[in-house]
Amino acid sequence: MNVHEVGIIMNGVTGRMGKNQHLARSIMAIRQQGGVRINDDETIMPQPILVGRNENRLKALGEQHGVPYSTDLNACLADPKYSIYFDAQTTLRRVESVKRAIAAGKHVYCEKPTAVSASEAVELFRCADTAGVKHGVVQDKLWLPGLLKLKYLIDTGFFGEILSVRGEFGYWVFTGENQPAQRPSWNYRKADGGGIMVDMLCHWRYVIDNLFGAVTAVSCLGATHLKERRDEAGQPYTCDTDDAAYATFETDQGIICQFNSSWCTRVRRDDLLTIHVDGTKGSAVAGLRECVVQHDSATPKPVWNPDIANPIDFFGGWTAMPWNQSFDNAFKVQWELFLRHVALDEPFRWGLLEGAKGIQLAELGLESWAKRAWVNVPPLAS
Amino acid sequence: MNVHEVGIIMNGVTGRMGKNQHLARSIMAIRQQGGVRINDDETIMPQPILVGRNENRLKALGEQHGVPYSTDLNACLADPKYSIYFDAQTTLRRVESVKRAIAAGKHVYCEKPTAVSASEAVELFRCADTAGVKHGVVQDKLWLPGLLKLKYLIDTGFFGEILSVRGEFGYWVFTGENQPAQRPSWNYRKADGGGIMVDMLCHWRYVIDNLFGAVTAVSCLGATHLKERRDEAGQPYTCDTDDAAYATFETDQGIICQFNSSWCTRVRRDDLLTIHVDGTKGSAVAGLRECVVQHDSATPKPVWNPDIANPIDFFGGWTAMPWNQSFDNAFKVQWELFLRHVALDEPFRWGLLEGAKGIQLAELGLESWAKRAWVNVPPLAS
Amino acid sequence: MNVHEVGIIMNGVTGRMGKNQHLARSIMAIRQQGGVRINDDETIMPQPILVGRNENRLKALGEQHGVPYSTDLNACLADPKYSIYFDAQTTLRRVESVKRAIAAGKHVYCEKPTAVSASEAVELFRCADTAGVKHGVVQDKLWLPGLLKLKYLIDTGFFGEILSVRGEFGYWVFTGENQPAQRPSWNYRKADGGGIMVDMLCHWRYVIDNLFGAVTAVSCLGATHLKERRDEAGQPYTCDTDDAAYATFETDQGIICQFNSSWCTRVRRDDLLTIHVDGTKGSAVAGLRECVVQHDSATPKPVWNPDIANPIDFFGGWTAMPWNQSFDNAFKVQWELFLRHVALDEPFRWGLLEGAKGIQLAELGLESWAKRAWVNVPPLAS
Amino acid sequence: MNVHEVGIIMNGVTGRMGKNQHLARSIMAIRQQGGVRINDDETIMPQPILVGRNENRLKALGEQHGVPYSTDLNACLADPKYSIYFDAQTTLRRVESVKRAIAAGKHVYCEKPTAVSASEAVELFRCADTAGVKHGVVQDKLWLPGLLKLKYLIDTGFFGEILSVRGEFGYWVFTGENQPAQRPSWNYRKADGGGIMVDMLCHWRYVIDNLFGAVTAVSCLGATHLKERRDEAGQPYTCDTDDAAYATFETDQGIICQFNSSWCTRVRRDDLLTIHVDGTKGSAVAGLRECVVQHDSATPKPVWNPDIANPIDFFGGWTAMPWNQSFDNAFKVQWELFLRHVALDEPFRWGLLEGAKGIQLAELGLESWAKRAWVNVPPLAS
Repeated sequence: MNVHEVGIIMNGVTGRMGKNQHLARSIMAIRQQGGVRINDDETIMPQPILVGRNENRLKALGEQHGVPYSTDLNACLADPKYSIYFDAQTTLRRVESVKRAIAAGKHVYCEKPTAVSASEAVELFRCADTAGVKHGVVQDKLWLPGLLKLKYLIDTGFFGEILSVRGEFGYWVFTGENQPAQRPSWNYRKADGGGIMVDMLCHWRYVIDNLFGAVTAVSCLGATHLKERRDEAGQPYTCDTDDAAYATFETDQGIICQFNSSWCTRVRRDDLLTIHVDGTKGSAVAGLRECVVQHDSATPKPVWNPDIANPIDFFGGWTAMPWNQSFDNAFKVQWELFLRHVALDEPFRWGLLEGAKGIQLAELGLESWAKRAWVNVPPLAS
Repeated sequence: MNVHEVGIIMNGVTGRMGKNQHLARSIMAIRQQGGVRINDDETIMPQPILVGRNENRLKALGEQHGVPYSTDLNACLADPKYSIYFDAQTTLRRVESVKRAIAAGKHVYCEKPTAVSASEAVELFRCADTAGVKHGVVQDKLWLPGLLKLKYLIDTGFFGEILSVRGEFGYWVFTGENQPAQRPSWNYRKADGGGIMVDMLCHWRYVIDNLFGAVTAVSCLGATHLKERRDEAGQPYTCDTDDAAYATFETDQGIICQFNSSWCTRVRRDDLLTIHVDGTKGSAVAGLRECVVQHDSATPKPVWNPDIANPIDFFGGWTAMPWNQSFDNAFKVQWELFLRHVALDEPFRWGLLEGAKGIQLAELGLESWAKRAWVNVPPLAS
Repeated sequence: MNVHEVGIIMNGVTGRMGKNQHLARSIMAIRQQGGVRINDDETIMPQPILVGRNENRLKALGEQHGVPYSTDLNACLADPKYSIYFDAQTTLRRVESVKRAIAAGKHVYCEKPTAVSASEAVELFRCADTAGVKHGVVQDKLWLPGLLKLKYLIDTGFFGEILSVRGEFGYWVFTGENQPAQRPSWNYRKADGGGIMVDMLCHWRYVIDNLFGAVTAVSCLGATHLKERRDEAGQPYTCDTDDAAYATFETDQGIICQFNSSWCTRVRRDDLLTIHVDGTKGSAVAGLRECVVQHDSATPKPVWNPDIANPIDFFGGWTAMPWNQSFDNAFKVQWELFLRHVALDEPFRWGLLEGAKGIQLAELGLESWAKRAWVNVPPLAS
Repeated sequence: MNVHEVGIIMNGVTGRMGKNQHLARSIMAIRQQGGVRINDDETIMPQPILVGRNENRLKALGEQHGVPYSTDLNACLADPKYSIYFDAQTTLRRVESVKRAIAAGKHVYCEKPTAVSASEAVELFRCADTAGVKHGVVQDKLWLPGLLKLKYLIDTGFFGEILSVRGEFGYWVFTGENQPAQRPSWNYRKADGGGIMVDMLCHWRYVIDNLFGAVTAVSCLGATHLKERRDEAGQPYTCDTDDAAYATFETDQGIICQFNSSWCTRVRRDDLLTIHVDGTKGSAVAGLRECVVQHDSATPKPVWNPDIANPIDFFGGWTAMPWNQSFDNAFKVQWELFLRHVALDEPFRWGLLEGAKGIQLAELGLESWAKRAWVNVPPLAS
């Protein structure tokens, strides 16, 4: 068996996402399955080392998974054993660390957003591009089972012509007053990189670009619905950035995508994120894992009559798509593609420029909010 | 028993809405129940006469209901037996007929929109106001059972502070190609007064004004998703006006109302119209008749984990409000209020100026679409 | 890592409650989780020794859990390694043992009832108080998930003004004639400390005091519904004490609490214990783990009409509160609080005086039964 | 066909109960079915005349049912065509009218309570007894299908020895502030004869006497949970009498009956009234129409373990009794029995002395509340 060992410096994986999605469910899961299988004779085996600043937490995590750890990033970057640098630190620290990794000749893979501004993100792309290293940005939602099912419908022409898309994302994030909040307090402070527009428009960019055409314009209204929350220590603090964003996008395929994102809404829909697509021949509503369809042939013809209970069961006329294939964890799928990209030079389109586009859309969303007008999305000079 | 006989000239009730909602379910239903009861000794009894241009259809309808009819509007207006003129003609003919009725000293009650432009609608208001006649405009959705339940929640403080509102209206209107369309073709032709923005923004205006505060600004994007449909004769025609509108409103209570209206969407929600209200202490989703609530105490705390089926049933945590009172047909309720206004001089706030506000919002929606920007809603000079 | 080792003499844990709740699910569970976490650097680790009279049972239990045991209580009390004495013996032996522990300078933690009479229980409190040792009494029901959910509702003002509370506790305890009884026979013999009033009024005291206001008066009727049962050896014996108690309490908040307790009732309710709270704005029914709510907005308006099946589903209008947090075993939660009280001097309100209040209420319940009248609850001289 | 025509003066049937239960569902229903069938050749046909003070309402009701009416009670009493006088007036007017009817030689049938005091009610009994007229008092709950099923269980020995009974009656009566109240405002004013104890203890008396043995003692606590309500005109008024009563009764069969009655509770049980009976061999819970049973053989043996969801479905182990017979309206059944009593001299035990017992229990309940003690129930000198 020919095993391609690929050393990965994992920086910032003591956080929730890094620990669960990247370390446990991606890299460790790949190791447990015997690596990324290339063929009967070849496999790619990731060899992680955890890097961070809090030695206690690193040690606990490293011992839990039986992998090495270090607080000395420079030493790791100098070690030729590691060819990939992965960054899941807070955004504010990302660019500087990734640049150091590029300078050390490492391939780089990053959580989103890759930078705090689109210009910086583009510059980071150029930096990697010039250095000739390979690069990738996490765009996990593309590999959610629900979105893969949606992609199946698009690819097989289920919709006829796609007319419009409605995205509803969000749930109620408790304020921390009567029960603990389920999101960190920095999410609600501008100075700490908070705000739902910055968080979610990055996602909507690649979801729309990949499924419904390149985003050409955006109109977005932000709101700070809840003005005060309690932090991790139970202390009240003022929320000074958007906790909801009401956005409409246009794409180069003429599809209108209306997306609401909110941390202040109670969920009465199929899932935390639902994407409702209407086409001439059928419609679909995708969640994280499930996707239901209503074909033209199953479309009811309702009559407006509030005098009687509506005789149509508006949920009954939809059919859940079956689980004809198994879907792996979305983060892991993208990791495997990136490892193949590094080890086998297979193509990989979700690089730093794509990551920069997400930040660009977030910036334009904020600009639209400020200008109270639609804003066009210019091409990012690559 | 003291019976107040109130004669009503009903013009244009051979159409779908006029025939079903105004004649059969309102005026005839009031007659069948013995009139509008004032007290043990007094009642108001409407005495309709049907007016229109197509004598055959008038005759059939009149005979069906056992009421008189006439094709001579002028003669009817000259008859002192009739104190109310009701207009359910197509919009293009409304202003002229209503003005004639006002000139004849009749109280007037109209379907919406009252005119084709806000300025004309305001002028109509001034005309009635100057003449000193009483006037009303149909705003039926205010008396839908679902919206009355919503009002109960608002009045009893269920929501705590209301943060935001999401309205979803619409359903799939067939093109007429493979199966008959369920809406008339003029809805899709600009020259005939078509367009969903013109149709629905009138409604959203009074719904929002009455429940969530006066609308202060609007951002609206229209779309003509389906470019060709078949008319009543099965002939293809070009759709040249909006069949979907993606709007966001702000109110003077600081509440954001995001409303989508579409004739090109397949329904996966509780009803043809759903209004989702989120507040600090609870949320509700109202349909035409039902309204479900989720109080803070029943609000789940979801965790994003696409690797497993979501353990939370996002529909199960809502409770349907009970039917503690019986609700009459919404049109009939407003008719009864108008009849009391006429006969007893009781207050009635839904007059021609309120009607004009609806048209104003539709115009501003179109303006926003054209300008690709938010538009403020100025006060209507009364 | 700074570990506070806290030695605990556990006396009487070979019984059902002691073995399951205190040893296995509390102390051993705390050890298995790595102690009581104070912060990243500090933890409290309980070090138990089992004490009792039956060496065989002690040995088996000690070996099962890998902890030391001894039949020599005096030797243990003399050992400075142990700072806490825990007592889960039968009530009759409790006071004497706890006093010896206090005399030896141990902090004490006891099962309830702490004594056979309130005066003795108060004296035990004074004894500990004078000695300056820390003390606690098990009041586990306060940390049942269902009651914590109820507390959430109270704290967040869900109820508006609370009007009344109905407690229903109990289930059918088989007599042992046709199938084995699920409770020990001493429960039904007065001389052995039996009686449901003595058993349960201790609980109702702290539940009501903590949730609904201090109990100010009690009316209680006892009954010995079943006069004969079979003991552990299958022999018939005469039951001479109450197996059901019908009590009503008043609190200083003006709330009426009507609580039935019975070992002779078959359960048709949500759980073995249900607490139904009615308030002006909503009601709730808490069980051991679940709690369902009905807000004013979901409250039906029933009409008495026995001629038809009731159109209202009286269970359907309630919503289960979600599991937004995980709840630990109630006994373990209180143990952790007591360990923090001992090791860190954090406040702990559930001491021997609170325990005495429970016994006081049981005595007053018996007095009320005998006098056939309401009895006031005087303050316990501390 | 031999038809016994029995004329009935129905006084006070324009009220809710009189109109629905006595006139429409009893007397008119008996007429529509062709009278009370005695045998193939004989039948009893009631001939009602409506009497009251509001001519308009009498006229409307009389015309609706096609029966005569009159505002002149004396004239009716003088008319030999009528042999029965029925009284459903407000309680305050009952005794005087019934006495006039007795003086006129009529048989009398009354709603409960028959008088405002037990002594007056006993005197009314003596008056009728001395005059030798037949008499009856409405005790409708005895003929509820649910209670008839319960009686079947008692008669067939299902319970073994009956140990205890729990009655839960009540529902949420809205205050009238946010939605109309479903009970008249006089119910909440002492001076107008209001109070739930006065209303319901009359019922509990005959229910318990007939099913579980003669009531020998009562302990009752009243409460005015809601201090302010809105009257029929929407005006606030002060509630000065009990809207909830927490009662315990003892019977001469040694059965304890604990009954709560409340207009301030939200219903989470099978019906508006549930009667839970526990016996040595089985238990049952009766509602208005249904009755579920759990026999010893189906009784689960629960274990207290709050650490896991209770594995027993406490509702699943009960079985609904089947509808092996059809049950007529309870009021109608008693009417038919009274008509047979009058026409055929068949026995009828539910006379004015039984009615007086109900009032007696209400008075003793109030006395117990005032004295804060149990009160014995002395025999009513007949």
